[in-house]
Amino acid sequence: MRNQSGGAAAEQGERARPDCIYGRNAVREALKSDRTVDTLFVARIAETTPVENGSLGAVVRLAREKGAVIKDVDRRKLDAMCDGANHQGVVLLAAAHAYAALEDIFATAEQRGEAPFLLLCDEIEDPHNLGALIRTAEAAGAHGVVVPRRRSAPLSFAVAKASAGAVEYLPVARVTNLCATIDALKSRGIWVYGADMQGEPYDAKPLRGAIALVIGSEGKGLGRLVRERCDGLLSLPMRGAIDSLNASVAAGILLYEIARTRCAAVMDV
Amino acid sequence: MRNQSGGAAAEQGERARPDCIYGRNAVREALKSDRTVDTLFVARIAETTPVENGSLGAVVRLAREKGAVIKDVDRRKLDAMCDGANHQGVVLLAAAHAYAALEDIFATAEQRGEAPFLLLCDEIEDPHNLGALIRTAEAAGAHGVVVPRRRSAPLSFAVAKASAGAVEYLPVARVTNLCATIDALKSRGIWVYGADMQGEPYDAKPLRGAIALVIGSEGKGLGRLVRERCDGLLSLPMRGAIDSLNASVAAGILLYEIARTRCAAVMDV
Repeated sequence: MRNQSGGAAAEQGERARPDCIYGRNAVREALKSDRTVDTLFVARIAETTPVENGSLGAVVRLAREKGAVIKDVDRRKLDAMCDGANHQGVVLLAAAHAYAALEDIFATAEQRGEAPFLLLCDEIEDPHNLGALIRTAEAAGAHGVVVPRRRSAPLSFAVAKASAGAVEYLPVARVTNLCATIDALKSRGIWVYGADMQGEPYDAKPLRGAIALVIGSEGKGLGRLVRERCDGLLSLPMRGAIDSLNASVAAGILLYEIARTRCAAVMDV
Repeated sequence: MRNQSGGAAAEQGERARPDCIYGRNAVREALKSDRTVDTLFVARIAETTPVENGSLGAVVRLAREKGAVIKDVDRRKLDAMCDGANHQGVVLLAAAHAYAALEDIFATAEQRGEAPFLLLCDEIEDPHNLGALIRTAEAAGAHGVVVPRRRSAPLSFAVAKASAGAVEYLPVARVTNLCATIDALKSRGIWVYGADMQGEPYDAKPLRGAIALVIGSEGKGLGRLVRERCDGLLSLPMRGAIDSLNASVAAGILLYEIARTRCAAVMDV
């Protein structure tokens, strides 16, 4: 099931899954191309051997120059990623779409003549959840999504598919430190609300003006540092026996409530 | 990977997947037990041979008496369901939870002293979507979910898992004809709203009193006959470029809006 469409990458180990490139030569060629790359997975040879040594060093340096996240993983993880094919200790995950800068999100808001409206995803590691969040944010009229570099699903083809194409329209920015980004947003006059079970009821007051909503993963919720930085926390009533909603459903309800009250505010003027 | 815990079903072909029982004796034993069953898949032997004939007849009659849906399928479908094991032309899908009756849903509403609040799922065939819908309905405070017998994911273990346990708390009723059920609900004074892109904006007016929301599948939306029977259609604004939301996200936004305005109505009194 190899991609037979030609090129060094295809010959040397690009699988039918279009975002997963393996083998040293194939990865090096992909890194030299215009392709947007996301994460380089390198097999841990021995605890004492830094990955920069040996023949993988050049590949790692090239990937770092291109802005990829480097992950030092167990060889068995690479075996699983490649269905047991000969990956030579290196797998490159290409991005389905290039990341935007935070400024692109502000530019989108300005173009539309609207106060900024953002969704921040705190450690959403499941690609289907991240895709569904991007899709929901786009439909709700948000200007962009922000994800952290670490502990987030990359902008992979699985995410693009789950987003139902929304990654083509909505800028997704990747930041090194989500807490620092929250501080930066606050200093620009944006109200940052976190989705949290301990927050005040989401419909207690109208949510108007420039707003960023932070959503955490289903299992863990918001990280402590992130939660402490928010201007306010919003909770959804759980009217039954279960105690949580799917992350994209919760985000959908909150994003549409923000959009509804922001829109009502504009009409009040 | 067989279940070694004993019993005829386990010995003769119950797989690690707990809802899939195969082989004639195993299926017959399961049908004789107290187990809640959902669907019986029978291999199509020849176009001209009715499934009631031959040695499978007794199994089919037993399944029908227990209320299972009988599906006449290609043998290769059974091979895939059983990972190639010897299914002898018959696979029984057990239900993760027993179906409720429509009256159970009304009883739940009455117990809580609330006007009925239902979610009707029109041809949601993906188990993850159905599970997420049940979870969302439970959290929003609905009293029950209604699914059609045909062209709906059964209440399988996959649905139960995706519901995050909500199937344990929320009655799910299975009806033969969703249109007839909509008529019955309307005659009981329940307002039936369908989620549809052509509807009026969902927040145009407060949604109060006894309400049933009908949600269709992502690809097809509501069926024509179902749509025509609704008292009203509600649409969610698509503020970006994509034209739809995931079914459970759309249902979540609508169910929470209904719950919010119903709750506000109670407080107004």
